[in-house]
Amino acid sequence: MTALAAAQLGLKSVIFCPEAASPAFQVSDAHVCATYDDWEALARFAAQVQVVTYEFENVPLDTAEFLAQRVPLRPGARALAITQDRLQEKTFINGLGIETAPFAAVDDLDGLHRAVAAIGLPAVLKTRRFGYDGKGQATVRPGDDLAAAWEAIGRQSAILEGFVPFDREVSIIAARRADDAFAAYEVTQNVHRNHILHTSTVPAEVGAATARQARSFACAIAGALDYVGVFAVELFVVGHGADERVIVNEIAPRVHNSGHWTQDGSVTSQFEQHVRAVAGWPLGETGRIGQVEMTNLIGDDVADWHEILAEPGAHLHLYGKAEARAGRKMGHVNRIWPDGAACPRGSSKSC
Amino acid sequence: MTALAAAQLGLKSVIFCPEAASPAFQVSDAHVCATYDDWEALARFAAQVQVVTYEFENVPLDTAEFLAQRVPLRPGARALAITQDRLQEKTFINGLGIETAPFAAVDDLDGLHRAVAAIGLPAVLKTRRFGYDGKGQATVRPGDDLAAAWEAIGRQSAILEGFVPFDREVSIIAARRADDAFAAYEVTQNVHRNHILHTSTVPAEVGAATARQARSFACAIAGALDYVGVFAVELFVVGHGADERVIVNEIAPRVHNSGHWTQDGSVTSQFEQHVRAVAGWPLGETGRIGQVEMTNLIGDDVADWHEILAEPGAHLHLYGKAEARAGRKMGHVNRIWPDGAACPRGSSKSC
Repeated sequence: MTALAAAQLGLKSVIFCPEAASPAFQVSDAHVCATYDDWEALARFAAQVQVVTYEFENVPLDTAEFLAQRVPLRPGARALAITQDRLQEKTFINGLGIETAPFAAVDDLDGLHRAVAAIGLPAVLKTRRFGYDGKGQATVRPGDDLAAAWEAIGRQSAILEGFVPFDREVSIIAARRADDAFAAYEVTQNVHRNHILHTSTVPAEVGAATARQARSFACAIAGALDYVGVFAVELFVVGHGADERVIVNEIAPRVHNSGHWTQDGSVTSQFEQHVRAVAGWPLGETGRIGQVEMTNLIGDDVADWHEILAEPGAHLHLYGKAEARAGRKMGHVNRIWPDGAACPRGSSKSC
Repeated sequence: MTALAAAQLGLKSVIFCPEAASPAFQVSDAHVCATYDDWEALARFAAQVQVVTYEFENVPLDTAEFLAQRVPLRPGARALAITQDRLQEKTFINGLGIETAPFAAVDDLDGLHRAVAAIGLPAVLKTRRFGYDGKGQATVRPGDDLAAAWEAIGRQSAILEGFVPFDREVSIIAARRADDAFAAYEVTQNVHRNHILHTSTVPAEVGAATARQARSFACAIAGALDYVGVFAVELFVVGHGADERVIVNEIAPRVHNSGHWTQDGSVTSQFEQHVRAVAGWPLGETGRIGQVEMTNLIGDDVADWHEILAEPGAHLHLYGKAEARAGRKMGHVNRIWPDGAACPRGSSKSC
């Protein structure tokens, strides 16, 4: 989707991807298909482009640094380094005076026992690196066998995170340019199913002060990372009324699934915004053009594509993946309706 | 732009184009670069795809028919045959009971004299085939040397068209599916400069009855051509008040420059609509989401791209062409603002 946004602005994309069936190859001028440690291929890739960006936060740091020595890398390798490691990430966020879930580092089973003593239960044991969509996580409840949890995550360096009694999950998508220009979209409310994002709706059910807090957190995080491009901050909403506030769950250093609504629901899509930021161009307007609900099409959900095409006001996006597998994101649909009106579709919980 | 719309719906495009620097190659899965009479290359192309469409009405008829024998061609070769020839096209339109400018066939200089006697002057001499953006045309005024006009258009088979005393030029973009499903966008008002489209604005300054007439003409034309896909009908608005009516200038059997506003100003872009129609999928909603002005960036106009990017509410589209030449369409910008409001930009005549 970033390549499509770049093409609309007359830019050619060259895609580096280890997967032979990368959908981005279908919509780009050229591509290099190689592993992340194929230095010769990376050098060849770098020689073809004026700037490099990434859409995946688990690009190895060595790969990012190799490219950054040859061509501008936006966002930089530091954003990647910090967000790849849950311990570094949470330490960084707390260092900005921003609240996260309570956490403790866990490097072995003894460490897990100490962490449980410090944080309490229930809690979630998460690998420090390479987790997404619920992978690399184990919930630990009172009475659970800690050794089993330690086995479940593969005995890797981890953190234990205290449970946050949140009411809602929200996120904020924002962009920053190298010169500190900053633009955020409205806060998005997210519902997950089986640890995978199911729907994002805008506007979110948060007070104005809470929305301002989310925006100020995003701005502080971007500045401290000297970030260039679009990023997401995932947040928990806790407390009620005047006590309502957000605490940071994690940072995604890339365009984000919870920002897909901007493709049809905002003046500038997050993909175009990312291209603008990375190119050093003016950031686009982030205004919302109506109420929006984004629904992911996971696995067999995509079989409904024909009905969605027939639905007034629905914008279907399919990713060109060869095969629908359980849990695989195959596409999404954005539904837009005017502020103040009811969603024309009756089937969704949120509209 | 059609390839981008197809990609958004998860479809892969294969592009056939004789030009080595075709921008569509930058955003498609595969391409064949060959001349329109390279039958081997055409057969190879046909073997790679499930359906063929075209964006250019001067594809040779032999080429279209060759492909149509191998794979579904939508729209069909007949739409191409009729719209490639101004004489056939106008005869076809009049045959539907729809008014055009008065015209007469011209095959030689004597014929031009006879046509002038029949139609009167001023009039425009236009080659029957391969004219666009004012090319292959000569205006003939009283006292002009007819032999010079005949030379000017290269002594090719032509028609002489009477001048139409029109107030405004408008167009209607519509789509038809093979099963006769039909959907039209709102009438668009067009301003040309040097025979090239400069701006398209929606809504157009036409009465409701005139808009209904335009829609019914488009519907009749599409049905009579058994048309599949998006097309444009260019119209002249003549008369005032209760006498206001439209007469047909020409039919474009493809997505059309005066429909580019739909990318940002409508629920479904004309490009997505074309893909839906060609694929046999449900047609999308054609509602307008505000007032829209599309401005072409011709030649050096494109140098303003950076200012346009900084303009709130402006949507920039650049085509990825290698070089800006005078008269060459390099991109366009869509400006959207709410109904009832004034355009936020002060510089345009129309807003």
